[in-house]
Amino acid sequence: MPEKLPHVVIVGAGFGGLQAALQLASARCYVTVIDRNNHHLFQPLLYQVATAGLSPGDIAIPIRHVLRRARNTEILMAEVTGVDTAEKKVLLESGRGIPYDYLILATGARHSYLGHEEWEPFAPGLKSISDATQIRGHILSAYEKAELETDPKRQQALLTIVIVGGGPTGVEMAGSIAELARKALKHEFRHFDPSHTRVILAEAGARILSGFPESLSKAARAELEKLGVDVRMGTRIEKISAKGVRMNGVELEASTVIWAAGVQPSKAASWLGIHSERDGRVPVDAHLNPQGHSKIFVIGDTAKVLDTDGHPLPGLAVVAMQQGRYVAKRIRARLSQKSRSVPFRYIDKGMLATIGRTFSVASIWRINVSGWFAWLIWVFVHIMYLVGFRNRVIVILDWMWAYVTYQRAVRLIVEDKPTR
Amino acid sequence: MPEKLPHVVIVGAGFGGLQAALQLASARCYVTVIDRNNHHLFQPLLYQVATAGLSPGDIAIPIRHVLRRARNTEILMAEVTGVDTAEKKVLLESGRGIPYDYLILATGARHSYLGHEEWEPFAPGLKSISDATQIRGHILSAYEKAELETDPKRQQALLTIVIVGGGPTGVEMAGSIAELARKALKHEFRHFDPSHTRVILAEAGARILSGFPESLSKAARAELEKLGVDVRMGTRIEKISAKGVRMNGVELEASTVIWAAGVQPSKAASWLGIHSERDGRVPVDAHLNPQGHSKIFVIGDTAKVLDTDGHPLPGLAVVAMQQGRYVAKRIRARLSQKSRSVPFRYIDKGMLATIGRTFSVASIWRINVSGWFAWLIWVFVHIMYLVGFRNRVIVILDWMWAYVTYQRAVRLIVEDKPTR
Repeated sequence: MPEKLPHVVIVGAGFGGLQAALQLASARCYVTVIDRNNHHLFQPLLYQVATAGLSPGDIAIPIRHVLRRARNTEILMAEVTGVDTAEKKVLLESGRGIPYDYLILATGARHSYLGHEEWEPFAPGLKSISDATQIRGHILSAYEKAELETDPKRQQALLTIVIVGGGPTGVEMAGSIAELARKALKHEFRHFDPSHTRVILAEAGARILSGFPESLSKAARAELEKLGVDVRMGTRIEKISAKGVRMNGVELEASTVIWAAGVQPSKAASWLGIHSERDGRVPVDAHLNPQGHSKIFVIGDTAKVLDTDGHPLPGLAVVAMQQGRYVAKRIRARLSQKSRSVPFRYIDKGMLATIGRTFSVASIWRINVSGWFAWLIWVFVHIMYLVGFRNRVIVILDWMWAYVTYQRAVRLIVEDKPTR
Repeated sequence: MPEKLPHVVIVGAGFGGLQAALQLASARCYVTVIDRNNHHLFQPLLYQVATAGLSPGDIAIPIRHVLRRARNTEILMAEVTGVDTAEKKVLLESGRGIPYDYLILATGARHSYLGHEEWEPFAPGLKSISDATQIRGHILSAYEKAELETDPKRQQALLTIVIVGGGPTGVEMAGSIAELARKALKHEFRHFDPSHTRVILAEAGARILSGFPESLSKAARAELEKLGVDVRMGTRIEKISAKGVRMNGVELEASTVIWAAGVQPSKAASWLGIHSERDGRVPVDAHLNPQGHSKIFVIGDTAKVLDTDGHPLPGLAVVAMQQGRYVAKRIRARLSQKSRSVPFRYIDKGMLATIGRTFSVASIWRINVSGWFAWLIWVFVHIMYLVGFRNRVIVILDWMWAYVTYQRAVRLIVEDKPTR
């Protein structure tokens, strides 16, 4: 590559980083994309992997495959440990420094235990492929153990699943697990009835899906209860251990606890030496630059961007994608010396969440719908976003099969270590 | 279940055990199937998982799903530690004993390092799903590291893959890796050419595929060499370490070494207190009973069965399946007091192995074919055997896609532990 081309470094190939890279593929610059994984992950369907509906390969695609035609772009699978803003270098774990002229930080978020990190081993969260396959193995193993268990009390504990947090992930997990238990596993056990599975969705606030209009929260709750989910509001989690949880002073034995209660941004703020606010996100201006760094952009879940009303934008894929495209356009304009200074504006396309097989809630262009029609919208939107994934056909077939037969295709328990 | 029904216990739900269970589904007995995994695995396609062509879920199916309609059958996911032949009980790791009237041991085999167990960490074998995903992650990670490597010598070591053993698994792995390197990864790296990957197939004997007729060994070798595989006969492996291998006195740096050189049977012989022969298989008579145990049957890779010429039967899925069906029929006959004593006879249906995209070798009913037509036979046979797997359609689509585009669908590197 000719050395004189400006060098854009993108850290993170999630929804934001990948969009930025795609937009820069034909620009007059050299691009380096750095990610700790080799794959871009379609996170909105991760709950389907965790509940045995889809294979990991259905929702993950190698980053370098997506960008294979971008001849100006290299992809490095590496762990970033910091940014040297004086020397203009991204620091890798190996000690190597990657020089940049422009830097896009799109490093995302992981789940946060709100100060109770000791709960993590007992209540895994759902952010990566390995999170999802671990949760899948844990849930399926609990059923296998229940088949061997002769003590009815211990058996019930094995069949008790608590999901902490009533946001979209918690709601989608609860619906999907309830259906797994009542439909897919129906005739497969001899010593208990899988439909006796207790699925408890524990929400701290006054309603689930608090980001959605209240009528949709209500519809979602009713649908979850129809599926047999025990939806509990105003729930304070006091303790999580190997035995189960204590909620509002009451102990409950549960072999599976899933954490869907909060996220924390990446360490991008500390890399930049920026005082990050209480929630850890990097405050950026209307051009998505952190203060004092006009050639650094922070986008996606790790950036704190305020909308015109002064509210922070939600941590959604669609927000990150719009920001990724915006930033790439801005860099292209600067490279061609155009003084483009239109501020970033988020175009709200609405929100979607799905509950079980054929029921969704959707809030789109201020229209609220729930039920079967919303579910069709959900399917359509998700398939559209999977464009570029070769897996689209496979995903659709997997879904069709699952919906027709109520079966789950990927009920795999895989040990971490092979036994001989 | 009425207690008086005779109880058949099957240990292992591979090809042999599963066939026996299916045949006993409608018999007047109570059946317990015990396996350490929750899934039956279609092992002949495991090399496609290891080389990113198929997802684990495409070739694995929950045992209890296959047997869900067998109301007389329970499935226990448990580790067997022994058999108490005096008390007629199968002993589980949990301490529990499962009583039996008839016992079928179908416990299979794992790879064997022929006395060099210390090589295992550096040269994984291919028997389970986790073996396959580990090998897949290892190979793909080597390419990722090569992209970051600036030292040409270390880069070449990262792009060197040694496969030990020229049987069907070794041959299929070598062909598949060579194509992955030369086709699927073609345009995706910027700092090296993936087609410079060195794939070495190291065979100890005088020819690869020694179980096949000599003409087919020759055809397979020629096809592998056309794909760029370095096929070496008479190779003595002297050392395997993290750096690579020493073969015939020569050190070779290689980041990936795959073991496909030998298998060892399960511990069934020691469970029965039977003196097992040098190869560890349990010698059985013409009715597949070990000496002195007329109600215990040993089948599949862990049994030593001689054909009419006195040669031991090979460790093939088709052998195990025929034995599973035979044993189930024998038990059914005994349950209905029929004195059926036809000895087991293996009906040889031939052998198949495939090399790369559209080339196979087949030896069927004494007819030897190689090339494209043999590959069609291979596809047909494998799809037929996948009957019962709902995944058949998906597998076919995955293949079609791969053959049309040369792409690999499942190029996933998944960490064992999530990083936060």
